[in-house]
Order: sequence, then C-alpha cells, then structure tokens
Amino acid sequence: MTGTPANLQVQLRQRPTGVPGDDCWNVLEVTTREPADGEFLVRNRYISVDPAMRGWINEGRSYVEPVAVGEVMRAGAVGEVVQSRNDQFPEGSCVSGLFGVQRYALSDGKGVISVDPGLAPLPVYLATLGMPGMTAYFGLLEVGAAKEGETVVVSAAAGAVGQVVGQIAKIKGCRTVGIAGGPEKCAWVTEELGFDACIDYRNADLRAGLREHCPRGIDVYFDNVGGDILDIALTRLAMHARVVICGAISQYNNMQAMKGPANYMSLLVNRARMEGFVVFDYAKRYGEAAKALAGWMQDGSLKTRIDEAAGLETFPATFRKLFSGENFGKLVIAV
Amino acid sequence: MTGTPANLQVQLRQRPTGVPGDDCWNVLEVTTREPADGEFLVRNRYISVDPAMRGWINEGRSYVEPVAVGEVMRAGAVGEVVQSRNDQFPEGSCVSGLFGVQRYALSDGKGVISVDPGLAPLPVYLATLGMPGMTAYFGLLEVGAAKEGETVVVSAAAGAVGQVVGQIAKIKGCRTVGIAGGPEKCAWVTEELGFDACIDYRNADLRAGLREHCPRGIDVYFDNVGGDILDIALTRLAMHARVVICGAISQYNNMQAMKGPANYMSLLVNRARMEGFVVFDYAKRYGEAAKALAGWMQDGSLKTRIDEAAGLETFPATFRKLFSGENFGKLVIAV
Repeated sequence: MTGTPANLQVQLRQRPTGVPGDDCWNVLEVTTREPADGEFLVRNRYISVDPAMRGWINEGRSYVEPVAVGEVMRAGAVGEVVQSRNDQFPEGSCVSGLFGVQRYALSDGKGVISVDPGLAPLPVYLATLGMPGMTAYFGLLEVGAAKEGETVVVSAAAGAVGQVVGQIAKIKGCRTVGIAGGPEKCAWVTEELGFDACIDYRNADLRAGLREHCPRGIDVYFDNVGGDILDIALTRLAMHARVVICGAISQYNNMQAMKGPANYMSLLVNRARMEGFVVFDYAKRYGEAAKALAGWMQDGSLKTRIDEAAGLETFPATFRKLFSGENFGKLVIAV
Repeated sequence: MTGTPANLQVQLRQRPTGVPGDDCWNVLEVTTREPADGEFLVRNRYISVDPAMRGWINEGRSYVEPVAVGEVMRAGAVGEVVQSRNDQFPEGSCVSGLFGVQRYALSDGKGVISVDPGLAPLPVYLATLGMPGMTAYFGLLEVGAAKEGETVVVSAAAGAVGQVVGQIAKIKGCRTVGIAGGPEKCAWVTEELGFDACIDYRNADLRAGLREHCPRGIDVYFDNVGGDILDIALTRLAMHARVVICGAISQYNNMQAMKGPANYMSLLVNRARMEGFVVFDYAKRYGEAAKALAGWMQDGSLKTRIDEAAGLETFPATFRKLFSGENFGKLVIAV
C-alpha cells in the first residue's frame, strides 16, 4: 500500500455531563500522513469499548491524562500493519495497542504488541488476551489473593472483565457467584461458563441471593460496578475478606457526588480490606498472565464472549450501551 | 474486707436511637454476692469510656455480642482486688479487665491482667497501656504498616487512640499530621506531643490543610471518625496508601444510613487499600506492644492525657461527651 488513505476518526468535541451524548463527539474524515522512519500505519480492525474510557474524558488527571478536547478518542484496538518503516512491526503483521477510535493509526511502536490471529480471533486480543483478561488475572489472583475453596463474587459477571474473573475463580477451585442484569446473562454465566450461581440484580433480591449462594460469606468480592451492589456485597463479607475495586460503572455518569459504600464499616467488623488497582502496574508480568490465559483457552476451560457493533460511526451509541448494561460480553466495534 | 459491699451499677435500660439519652440507663444500687472459689471481687477505680461502647448497645451482633437490656453496661476498668479466692489475683493487687460500669465487679480472672500502679498511674492502663494503646500500636504498625519518612495523618488526634498513633508515628520517623476539633487540642498535639501539624477541622479548611501539610500526599490515614473527614482525606492519598479503619465516631449515632466514603475510587487511582481491624485479634501480642509503649513512656517520648470525670452516676452525660467531641484526651470516670 502506498499513499495516505482517508481516515475516519472519532474526536472528543466536548466533555460530557452525565451520560455522554452524541454532541460530545465529532465523527469526521481526516488525512493521515505517511509513516516516518521507525513508524508504521495500522488499519484498525476492532476497537475496544471499555468503561474506563468514561474516566478518560473527564477533566482532571486520574491515573492517566485525560483525552483533550479535539483529540481522537483514546481506545485500545487491534489491526493490521499496512505501511511500515519499523522492522519490528512489518507490513501484514497484526498488532494491538492504544490506536484510538479511528480507521487508521500511526504508531512508533510504543506500547504496541504483536498478536497472532492464528491463535485466537482478533477481538479476543481486546478481551481475554487483552486488558480485560490482564485486569481479571491480576485483580483476582494478586489483589484479591483468591484461594482454592474460597467464595468469589463478581459483579458485571457477563462483562469483559467479569466473565474472565469468574472463570479463573472456577479454574482455581473457588465457589463462584456472579451478579448480572437479566436472565439471559445469568443463564449464560452459569450454563456456559460454569459459575456456581448468578444473581439477577434487576429481578431478584440481591441480599437474599448472596445469603443463599454464599452461605459462608464472601471471601473475595471483585467489584466492577460500585453503588448499591457494592454496598450490599459488603454486608456479606467473610472474615478477612478482600474487596477488589476494579471499577464503578454505576457511578461514572453521576451528576451528583459519587455514592460511597455506606456499609464500609463491615471492613472493620470482618477485618477485611478494600483495595484498588490499575492493571498497567502489572505490565512487566503480562506475559505470565497471557500464557496462563491462553493455556486455559486452549484446554477449553476459559471462554470468551464478544459483543460486536459494526462501524466506527456507531461509537457514540455503542459506548452508551456500557452504561445501560445493554452489552452482553466484551464490547468491540468492528471497523 | 468481709461481707458484701453495696454496689452501684449502670445498666442498659433500653437501646438508644441516635445519641444515647439519660433514659437509656438505670443507675441503681444492687447487692453483690461474695466471690466463689476461683473468683475475686474488684473495687473499680477508673472506668473506661470509649466510642466502641456505642456499638455494643446496638441490637445485633457486631464483632462482639451486644449488651443485653437490663445488663450492667460493659466497659473496661481498672481497680483493686478487695476479696479474693483466686491465687493469681490476691487481695490488694491491681487489675484491669472488662469489669463494667459499676463500683464492684466479680471476676473469675478471664481476660483480666494485673497492673502495676507503681509503674504508671492507674488510668494509663485504660489508655496508652490499655486497649487504646494496643489499638494504636497494631493499627498503625501492622495494618497501616507505617514506615520511616512516610506521612501519617490521624483523625481525633487528641483522643485516646489518636494521641498514641501520632506519637508512635513520630517515634518511627514519620511526618505526622493530626486532625482535631478546636485550637486547644491542636495546640496540645503539636506543642506537647510534637506532631508536625494539626488541622482544626472546625475552624479551618481541612482540604487546604491537608494540601499544605501533606505535600507528598498521605501514606497512612488512620481514621477514627468516618464521615466527611474520611472523605476529604481520601482525596489526598499518596500512591499505595493505607487507610486504617479504626472507628467512625461521627456516624455511630446516625439516625439515617451511615455516610459512605464517596471518594473511595481514590483507592483505585492510587492503588491504595482501606482495611479494618479489631484489636482483640492481636491479643497474643499485647505483651510486645506493652513493652514497647512502656519503654517510650519511660524515655519521655510517649505522653498520655487523661480526661477524668468524677462519679459513676455521671456515666450517661460523660458518655455523650465523646460524640460532641467535648472530651480532651482519654475519657475515664473516677469511681
């Protein structure tokens, strides 16, 4: 391929208040320059759509710099190298990186890894073999320190991270209970993924469900949602429980202050801890996790469900599906 | 001493809603039987008045069984053995234990320790050399894992636990910042105890104070109060900070739900943890702590301030001083 292809790009037009509306985004054609020495051009195939992205478009520094207004929206993606002046990433190879919500991305290779489409379908590198998989692996095993025979509860159990958390917990011999919205997700989590139980927080009494399915209390609660669900889970902690704070999707669009976990004194009564983490801190050990996760995928004990939307221009609406809980599995956009 | 002395006792009359009023208590004379074999009778000299006691009179099990309606109010106390049929605790010796809010207590020696009034004044065995001291020691050094050069912030800094936490932090080479209510307490904490700073949360902007006095963030936040102060402290955590949940006195009398820490996602951003503990779990190591604390008292690096009320019958009003913040130092009642 020669010349510069026309690029379609989703830029942040303005910072959102609450749920990001269509007016927060500009979807427009831009031109891309040719790769300089050491650079390469990626044709994105799948864009990752993740809850964390909501934090990236707020003003003010969090664990990463916010996306600036007028910039292309930051996102993980997998694609194919179509022009290259970098020997490490030759034309025709497949790569994963923070390529942004756009059709073509220029890269100098920083933070980019090669992926093998023969080993797993490309979107899986944004899911179980990507950040959600790494997040689940280190969050559950390092921060949560889940051990055989313990009871693990995970919220957003059918989501990108939750589905991996629960499956690793099962592999490690834990009693595994999911929390998800709707009978379809709950059935998938128990029947397809082998969770011991899944509580439909929309249609069942979560408190009663946790009492029933966690008779000895919760040893590890892996939280992706915050809000009332976190609060109720806190009432069922076992002694020396670990609460892993991975996300708080129920709170990201709050117009008022965040809702704090009112039952946090359960940490005292149960000598328990609540701990946050950022997966990037484990970057040096991604290889270890990837090897374990790929092994489990190969022997059939770890499955991946992808929820695929079509077309970059759907990004504003697709992104909102995360907050209404409409996505079922790891949400990606096929470019 | 022979015969049974008249005993004055404070009993729980009814469970409180909110701040415990006078009507929650019965103060009455009762008769005490003589010690049976293995028992002894203690003449209480000082009764400990602690925030944790508020939790003990709620219905429902927490980390200990609640005090039953009609029972003598549970409390730590120090006193003198006046009749004994237990060789371990002879007449004339001084002892510390959960003797309750009463003038005389019968005991079989369970959970009782001998104390030496020659080594420290008796009330100190309810303070720095008692539960508050143990709580401060294990909370700061084990749960908080405070290390030399780190910044430690403690709320209720002039209280029974807070004053010990801050002084141990100084001894260990930490930058130490207190939070207390009123200029008098703040002055005492910095001038007498040597804290690096103390923020008067009633008269100063706590957020600005923490910014000024913790320029590199908070490594260990030792929380005795909960509520808004915990919430603001969370905004100033350093990376890998530890939040030690020791108490939540601002919330104990809440008629509505507890206020949860809305800024708990700071745990994620800062890879921090929040951990609760109950000092009883460290019972086997009390000797180690007592030895260290007594040593520091001897070399002058650890001081104790006692706030002494007079007379058992003042218990209902004295207890309420904890929640209005009127006490200044470890609160005890001289019997």
